[in-house]
Amino acid sequence: MNSIRVPVVEKILSANDQLAFQNRQFLKSKGVFSINMMASPGAGKTSFILQTIDGLKNRLKIGVIEGDTAAVTIDADKVSDAGVPAVQINTGGDCHLDAVMVAGGLQQLPLETIDLMIIENVGNLVCPAAFDLGTDINILIASVPEGDDKPYKYPAIYRGIDVLILNKMDLLPYIKFRPDYFKQGVEMLNPGLTTFPVSCVTGEGITDWLNWLENRVKKSHR
Amino acid sequence: MNSIRVPVVEKILSANDQLAFQNRQFLKSKGVFSINMMASPGAGKTSFILQTIDGLKNRLKIGVIEGDTAAVTIDADKVSDAGVPAVQINTGGDCHLDAVMVAGGLQQLPLETIDLMIIENVGNLVCPAAFDLGTDINILIASVPEGDDKPYKYPAIYRGIDVLILNKMDLLPYIKFRPDYFKQGVEMLNPGLTTFPVSCVTGEGITDWLNWLENRVKKSHR
Repeated sequence: MNSIRVPVVEKILSANDQLAFQNRQFLKSKGVFSINMMASPGAGKTSFILQTIDGLKNRLKIGVIEGDTAAVTIDADKVSDAGVPAVQINTGGDCHLDAVMVAGGLQQLPLETIDLMIIENVGNLVCPAAFDLGTDINILIASVPEGDDKPYKYPAIYRGIDVLILNKMDLLPYIKFRPDYFKQGVEMLNPGLTTFPVSCVTGEGITDWLNWLENRVKKSHR
Repeated sequence: MNSIRVPVVEKILSANDQLAFQNRQFLKSKGVFSINMMASPGAGKTSFILQTIDGLKNRLKIGVIEGDTAAVTIDADKVSDAGVPAVQINTGGDCHLDAVMVAGGLQQLPLETIDLMIIENVGNLVCPAAFDLGTDINILIASVPEGDDKPYKYPAIYRGIDVLILNKMDLLPYIKFRPDYFKQGVEMLNPGLTTFPVSCVTGEGITDWLNWLENRVKKSHR
């Protein structure tokens, strides 16, 4: 079975890579800095995006693409309520966004007026890792209740990211989570990875993240 | 792009369905009751399986197949330490088990001496929903920290299950989770679904689950 499937996947990937390259060029030409935000379901992607919008909306113009496997607008509605332009992409059951879907989403947003584009991928630690969307950086939001063994079990996604957010730090007292074991797994796969431990409930760590991101966006505009 | 991909997926699915049918017949002929256990990464599949083994190992003979995307044996080791035969399947990056992989795993287990086969799928709320493994029942382990909106966002997996476990009930006091909203989403997709709220930390709800499962296994042997 693998011998049948591998060539098909490779073909899709190489088409995706070409389109990701085009997205990257296109966003650059519009002066948009972009983030692909990945996570397991329920790690807190949307809450973290809302915190980011809230903290930066007076300093940067932000746009959002929301990826979902079903035609529910829960996340897109929350983002729209936060006062930024948002588009929802329904993958029709697919387990990840790809560069084609993102290209379609970008056409529906006022890119000329956007500094920072946040793309919320489908909640999944496996599939999104294999599909470049053409963003400037890839971010993974891990969360304390998922457990400290996730880097060991889902190495591909940890290898390909530029920034790691460790969310739900407020739950650390109630959960058996060994920060050293987690960190060791991450370090093995992605040495020196920029990491922000945060809590969207208490606000812990959010300021550091916002300052880092604002600097990155401004640097990209120079 | 979709027009290229859909026929390929359909072909794989129908081959998978045939093999799932064979697995089901094969397990039946050996008198093995089988469970496909699905969940998001970090919902507590392995902890829940260990609780199930611990509670039933004096009453039933249990075997386990562990699905992982990488060649780590963290979960398989834990299960082996619990004293039951276990096989690990490395999907090589694939986001789900399929019927072929399970057929291979079954060949490596002493089925003649097993009453209950537990298959731990890859941590993922999207892909496993589309692949029948040939088990008697499909179970989803949801968990409180994932949030109460998951049935709305990942409807396919909620539609196809026979039993729902809601794990990490001990964290309810520390998390904004509306049990009624969650239940309403589940009810819409899968009316009357058998549900067990549990905590693998406090043991809450585990006895009810064990009694239910033991009855199901014994009924299947009549």
